[in-house]
Amino acid sequence: MDLNTQTVAAGRGRAFAMKAGDHVRIVNTHGHQVVDAWALAAEDAGETSSMDHTRSVNSNIFFQQGMRVLSSRRRPMLTLVADSAGLRHDTLLCPCSRELYQQLGCAEPHRSCTDNFHEALAEAGCAVPFTPASLNLFMNVPVSPDGAVDRLPPASRAGDSVVLRAEMDLTLVLSACPQDITPINGEARTPRDIAVVMIDAFDGEEAP
Amino acid sequence: MDLNTQTVAAGRGRAFAMKAGDHVRIVNTHGHQVVDAWALAAEDAGETSSMDHTRSVNSNIFFQQGMRVLSSRRRPMLTLVADSAGLRHDTLLCPCSRELYQQLGCAEPHRSCTDNFHEALAEAGCAVPFTPASLNLFMNVPVSPDGAVDRLPPASRAGDSVVLRAEMDLTLVLSACPQDITPINGEARTPRDIAVVMIDAFDGEEAP
Repeated sequence: MDLNTQTVAAGRGRAFAMKAGDHVRIVNTHGHQVVDAWALAAEDAGETSSMDHTRSVNSNIFFQQGMRVLSSRRRPMLTLVADSAGLRHDTLLCPCSRELYQQLGCAEPHRSCTDNFHEALAEAGCAVPFTPASLNLFMNVPVSPDGAVDRLPPASRAGDSVVLRAEMDLTLVLSACPQDITPINGEARTPRDIAVVMIDAFDGEEAP
Repeated sequence: MDLNTQTVAAGRGRAFAMKAGDHVRIVNTHGHQVVDAWALAAEDAGETSSMDHTRSVNSNIFFQQGMRVLSSRRRPMLTLVADSAGLRHDTLLCPCSRELYQQLGCAEPHRSCTDNFHEALAEAGCAVPFTPASLNLFMNVPVSPDGAVDRLPPASRAGDSVVLRAEMDLTLVLSACPQDITPINGEARTPRDIAVVMIDAFDGEEAP
């Protein structure tokens, strides 16, 4: 693990500052971990990643290599420049939340991607009074012709990764999803760490 | 037109107060008009309709009769109790915005559903510092197996309507979409009025 590698602990969130042109590799270290992702413009945290504008500009409900994440002001924020598993990442479903876990029957408070988002922002000295829809990296949500969504374990394997390029100065927030009631993070229902590598010079190769 | 009928003017927005249990009929008077819709909890405008939670709870990317609109706190806000045309309403695409019209080549400022949302709220003495994803009633956005979205004129005809029941006290915001560059509001590319009827006693029938 090189000096540029950082960890997002299982079930936790973390914020990363990126400059326009920076690349970040997000490594699914253990294979089946969903990573909820958001971006906020450095110059104004009220300009956030927007899944509805993202689907509109990509004219697609999934997020795949070559596509961009758009902001709430319709500006490019991130581009998916590499994806070792060639996945269709999810743009459709909400980040998990305390209310979702209550509805799943959890009597005790349960960590959630929504809380991770706000906690990670607070640690970065930032706050927004709402929760944007998340880009759900590695999350496997096929859609039937009648519009029904399924929720399957990720199709990725240990070491699979994606590379995102920042298209503006921004704060990237990642949450290693704490969902352990359903198999969305794999049949083992065990949230795992992910690795985050800030890449100095990305050459487009899928180097390990 | 009875005394309970109100109009949302072509290309404009309007807010309506509803109590839990109230029904509202939204009439596509001229046939092919998309109506962007949002709801805000009466007790806290920060709790808004959420398309990502709506898709999650309905397990579907479309919005059809019998489905509910969920809030950002995962509480039921609205139920689609009647739909004369049996449509698949859109939950996927963003409300149009000033930036979208700039990107479509409009040199002059253009009215938008996003601005209509904030203007209608301001007229109701309310404000939120973000734009939730909209429920796009009558909007015809089929999705291909590869996830590609199309944008077709509405399949509704003059007089078609939907009935929504409020599941909590809320502010309903409707925008008669001002889009006149693309045919999303019909091949005539002419935004039209819609009619809004607050129903005293809804009996489940599709009375005209």
